Amino acid sequence: MKRTEIASLGEFGLIDHLTKNIELKNPSSQKGVGDDAAVLSYDNKKTLVTTDLLLEGIHFDLVYVPLKHLGYKSAVVNFSDIYAMNGQPKQITVSLGISKRFSVEDLETFYEGVYLACEEYGVDVIGGDTSASLTGLTISITCIGEGEESQIVYRYGAKDTDLICVSGDLGAAFMGLQLLEREKTVYDGETDFKPDFSGKEYLLERQLKPEARKDIVKFLRQEGVVPTSMIDVSDGLSSELKHICKQSGVGCRIFEERIPIDYQTAVMAEQFNMNVTTVALNGGEDYELLFTIPLYLHDKVSAIKGVHVIGHITKEEYGLLLETRDGGEISLKAQGWDSIKEG
Amino acid sequence: MKRTEIASLGEFGLIDHLTKNIELKNPSSQKGVGDDAAVLSYDNKKTLVTTDLLLEGIHFDLVYVPLKHLGYKSAVVNFSDIYAMNGQPKQITVSLGISKRFSVEDLETFYEGVYLACEEYGVDVIGGDTSASLTGLTISITCIGEGEESQIVYRYGAKDTDLICVSGDLGAAFMGLQLLEREKTVYDGETDFKPDFSGKEYLLERQLKPEARKDIVKFLRQEGVVPTSMIDVSDGLSSELKHICKQSGVGCRIFEERIPIDYQTAVMAEQFNMNVTTVALNGGEDYELLFTIPLYLHDKVSAIKGVHVIGHITKEEYGLLLETRDGGEISLKAQGWDSIKEG
Repeated sequence: MKRTEIASLGEFGLIDHLTKNIELKNPSSQKGVGDDAAVLSYDNKKTLVTTDLLLEGIHFDLVYVPLKHLGYKSAVVNFSDIYAMNGQPKQITVSLGISKRFSVEDLETFYEGVYLACEEYGVDVIGGDTSASLTGLTISITCIGEGEESQIVYRYGAKDTDLICVSGDLGAAFMGLQLLEREKTVYDGETDFKPDFSGKEYLLERQLKPEARKDIVKFLRQEGVVPTSMIDVSDGLSSELKHICKQSGVGCRIFEERIPIDYQTAVMAEQFNMNVTTVALNGGEDYELLFTIPLYLHDKVSAIKGVHVIGHITKEEYGLLLETRDGGEISLKAQGWDSIKEG
Repeated sequence: MKRTEIASLGEFGLIDHLTKNIELKNPSSQKGVGDDAAVLSYDNKKTLVTTDLLLEGIHFDLVYVPLKHLGYKSAVVNFSDIYAMNGQPKQITVSLGISKRFSVEDLETFYEGVYLACEEYGVDVIGGDTSASLTGLTISITCIGEGEESQIVYRYGAKDTDLICVSGDLGAAFMGLQLLEREKTVYDGETDFKPDFSGKEYLLERQLKPEARKDIVKFLRQEGVVPTSMIDVSDGLSSELKHICKQSGVGCRIFEERIPIDYQTAVMAEQFNMNVTTVALNGGEDYELLFTIPLYLHDKVSAIKGVHVIGHITKEEYGLLLETRDGGEISLKAQGWDSIKEG
């Protein structure tokens, strides 16, 4: 494969090269790459801003993450935060710190993924920064979106008796990561990383090419439903429930049997000798939407494909509880990934 | 000095700790830190967005850059990009990748600098991301600002016969860096880096604690002057002139004797056996404003303290020229820092 050294283009040459085919799609993107700042037009709408920093060795491992997937995922996880405000992502800036290990072709591949995500979600790349790095790849993406004041949903509006809903299923991305890590260990030292993942495609897709729930935001709007609170599930269901309950000053009760789990997730958890509920509660990187709605909207929300009612909001003093399949009650803890791995 | 490990707070604890005293100042900052995205209100104004990625070992050296100064500078260089659009910075997001070498107190010190800059320039911290890093400190800042459509200045509007103006003086930050690098070499291996910099304070200040030219943007507005093009001088005068000329489809002629240079810069260049004009043309990190105005506004702009007319725009076919003190003519090249050092 061709390898062009980044130094042969220089910083400005590289930026020109990677951004030359951009065509701005959104009316709010007035001026993109190529000046001191981008110019956006958000008349009569609120502007939403979110940012994510992704570091090699911490957030991704290039042994098993293809650069195109990484570009796609880096963009999508930011879109997910805008959807979690019940808004629409419209622009991103993409900043990269790049060590000499990477070629111009590598960055083209990364950007292919970014542009593909932008195409799918109707987002414009409007700027960024490119820099040399001493070690590894650094990715910083800021996403800007829009929302109407009356439609924006915060984390703090959940009320006693509200229903707790979650889209899709949970824990699959985490099991996909476990699988990749296991195969990496097996293949350690071999240069050609091509294990057989047949029958586990869904887990890998959830880890390597997650999608943001644009469709759910659209369905909610079609049904005229504005959730009382919403957050995206990036750090695990427990952690996100904790954020909503803390900021809303409420408690919650969710039911183990109602937590949506895919068949492949369950099988893989079994193989790894992990409790699948723990995986679903704490796995993270699901990028599903967790939201609360008033009780009377139950029927409307139940009609939305892929949305599951998993419990309800309670008074603060009841705390955060999980009712287990056998009728027991345990306190929800936000463990995060590390403690699952260690436990 | 007290050292609190970051792990003792956790990611959310750390963010809470570092952002707990934020009070949003700007009406456009509707909701800051603490949700999936910040919410801004830019009714009837255009939104300006710029971003910078700063990596340890590439953009800064913590041997001689105090963390508080680094925080200040990281914010200010982003404000400078917004002023270069003739806009007003209003919000920033601050993302940090942090290795175990850094303590909570270190980050407090960094944030003190960020908050001080925000205080001075009327900007709100509205979000960010905090992550572990395997090596060194990674800083990614996105700045959002506002501008009125009729007031926003791009790089592409310069026209034949326009005057070329620059604020302040050039080359000082570069000489400050040379000085710090030299002393670092001298002190190599010693833990206590306290060289004597008396008489060179201005150079150090320009390198370690630069300011953005808020005042120039204000004066231009007071005088009713909207430049035809503008850019901030971060990569050196030559490089910035090249951007303006390329995007505007024009040439330029500047005069060596008119390039503003501080006395300390000249003395230090002499000591380093460097050509001071080359330093001023290619040094970078000046964060001054370079802009063009129609000829008839000459008197108005001359009245602004600290603005120097250094030449004029020409037709594209004349190229980019520097008229030397002895009446000679040389072609302007954007060398950037590295070539000065090597040359």
